[in-house]
Amino acid sequence: MKLVCSQSDLSTNLSLVSRAVPSRPTHPVLANVLLQADAQTNQVSLTAFDLSLGIRTTFTAQVWQGGAIALPAKLLVDITSRLPEGEITLDDESALEAETSGGVSEASRSEGLIVTLTPKSGHYQVRAMGAEEFPELPIIENAEALQLTTASLIEGLRGSLFATSGDETKQVLTGVHLKLTQDTLEFAATDGHRLAVVETTNERPLGGSGEIEVTVPARSLRELERMLAHSSDSDEPVALSFDQGQMVFEWQHQRLTSRTLEGQYPAYRQLIPRQFEREVTLDRRQFLSTLERIAVLADQKNNIVKITIDSAGQQITLSCEAQEMGSGRESMPAQISGEDIEIAFNVKYLMEGLKALPASEIQMHLNQNLTPVIFTPLGGLKMTYLAMPVQLRN
Amino acid sequence: MKLVCSQSDLSTNLSLVSRAVPSRPTHPVLANVLLQADAQTNQVSLTAFDLSLGIRTTFTAQVWQGGAIALPAKLLVDITSRLPEGEITLDDESALEAETSGGVSEASRSEGLIVTLTPKSGHYQVRAMGAEEFPELPIIENAEALQLTTASLIEGLRGSLFATSGDETKQVLTGVHLKLTQDTLEFAATDGHRLAVVETTNERPLGGSGEIEVTVPARSLRELERMLAHSSDSDEPVALSFDQGQMVFEWQHQRLTSRTLEGQYPAYRQLIPRQFEREVTLDRRQFLSTLERIAVLADQKNNIVKITIDSAGQQITLSCEAQEMGSGRESMPAQISGEDIEIAFNVKYLMEGLKALPASEIQMHLNQNLTPVIFTPLGGLKMTYLAMPVQLRN
Repeated sequence: MKLVCSQSDLSTNLSLVSRAVPSRPTHPVLANVLLQADAQTNQVSLTAFDLSLGIRTTFTAQVWQGGAIALPAKLLVDITSRLPEGEITLDDESALEAETSGGVSEASRSEGLIVTLTPKSGHYQVRAMGAEEFPELPIIENAEALQLTTASLIEGLRGSLFATSGDETKQVLTGVHLKLTQDTLEFAATDGHRLAVVETTNERPLGGSGEIEVTVPARSLRELERMLAHSSDSDEPVALSFDQGQMVFEWQHQRLTSRTLEGQYPAYRQLIPRQFEREVTLDRRQFLSTLERIAVLADQKNNIVKITIDSAGQQITLSCEAQEMGSGRESMPAQISGEDIEIAFNVKYLMEGLKALPASEIQMHLNQNLTPVIFTPLGGLKMTYLAMPVQLRN
Repeated sequence: MKLVCSQSDLSTNLSLVSRAVPSRPTHPVLANVLLQADAQTNQVSLTAFDLSLGIRTTFTAQVWQGGAIALPAKLLVDITSRLPEGEITLDDESALEAETSGGVSEASRSEGLIVTLTPKSGHYQVRAMGAEEFPELPIIENAEALQLTTASLIEGLRGSLFATSGDETKQVLTGVHLKLTQDTLEFAATDGHRLAVVETTNERPLGGSGEIEVTVPARSLRELERMLAHSSDSDEPVALSFDQGQMVFEWQHQRLTSRTLEGQYPAYRQLIPRQFEREVTLDRRQFLSTLERIAVLADQKNNIVKITIDSAGQQITLSCEAQEMGSGRESMPAQISGEDIEIAFNVKYLMEGLKALPASEIQMHLNQNLTPVIFTPLGGLKMTYLAMPVQLRN
């Protein structure tokens, strides 16, 4: 294998895939990135795979001699990211030369593969492993693919990921549930205390095989979100395909595979009330910044904020009280229909939902002070955020 | 006590002094900031003191009624930093009103002081403590003060602080040693492996009482550096005064006091060779960035970089070797006088020194490969950095 590529291509792609390199690999080869170079197409692909999440990216290089090899991920990221812009030669045929040059230690001269990195100035040699030791990325064949734009995929992820559970024992709740119908793709996430649902459009309607449902680990989807955020073209289509226990996202030069989570996802739709006795329209940013201030005085134990809805005054009042420390309250204008009510929330759940709602104005839909409350953006994306109120001590 | 001030003044000054609030206070009152308001001068001062480091700042406000009170630091910083720009009223006379308003919990209504913060919208009440419980900041009377500009004080700190020891058992080595002579102030720091010395000009020559020497904890000086970095005027004079076990820095509206470290500081001057057999002039940035790349391959255990000085080729070659991982080498141009030599350093000490040297070109002065090596900037500030070479294994 011998190839010449640019420092920026190598460094950018290495840091993209290295997110799938486990920090504590269960097998030495998993600490590596698989490099595959094709002399006919002049394409180089890099793959990292922790047996659950896999990332592959492809870029163009001058491939003098094709081949495949597994390279130590962290070391390579650290070196290439510090190299100046310019051409880098990668070569694994130089073990013999290295032996005679005298610049290599006993350890690296012993059996095993050595790859030489030659930037404009300098000369680096790293120990490599055989490509055959690297596990195969799962491949999905003949699976029905659906298609979303980068923009709507990002919207779906941004509106759901934050509501997943961080508690690994909660199984399916640590993932985002994707439900594909004829022409929509729905993202849902809940940790048992709140629920976020986003509906996006599937741009390549299914052939009529009905619904597909799958739950994908939040960790994989966070990496997907991060990779898509780097994409310059928000109209770029992303293909999604499902298979037994696997899901694949593919776009331009990139591909992310993830195992899916087993188990029945909660029937969340039935939690969302359809009729409401009260509606409050609020400026999202003002609501959020007021909450952030008030939250300083929320009791660290129960973290509760009280909201008093004053229909005559067309305003809401937020208040917090921390035992032994102090208390705070602020009011802000609101458009209110329905009767006055006092209702309390865990301030964390409220703030996280407000941060994710993609609109400058939002609506709060309520019934009683202990029934689920729904937050929706005014206009734009179809998102629903459900938060459970909490009981107020007297 | 009752005053009206701007959110930005209160928030900025609170966050400045709060750096001297201990994270785990040995006494409850130390978690507070002492607020003193003077109705005659319309000045408000804030003080925090962890019994070693003390910070006091002063700003202008409308003081309706003078007084002093100790306020919970973290809570106040968190609230005021989140408030919108505008006027804030602070009032500790409102305990009675609060009692009748019903918005205060049992806990805060019980005996004890309550301070009310009233921004444009909203109403915050926090539990306070009596000013008399707050310890007095040490005062230095009739001490000879010297005077530096903000700029040269920052230079002295930047060139020395990084070389102090982080190991609390190393006593005086955890501080910067200040030596005042007739018209210079010298900053020195060493952790036993390397030494940094910076000489600045004392703008107010001493009356002739000879030298003063004192060692100040790095922690206090880091806060001083941070505070001075916010100062807009680099010509602003800073007055330094010394006393038994105390040092005070005072400028415009701010004042920092620190206890000093006891014990004899090493006689560092005699470690610095006066004559050299070899001199190497280098581009500092290029040297540093090459080191940063090469260091990726430095063995994690001994962290050694080898430098080969090639006088005929007028270049130096840096190389590292990590057992079982790989090796790297790079060359860069240099102006060299003296014979060829191979010398090795702990790469960390080399990089930290290079980062602090304030010049685009630097000089490396060497004798043999195991005698102290001196780095100096070309032109500008008088700084000396000494690094001990290490033995190369064969």
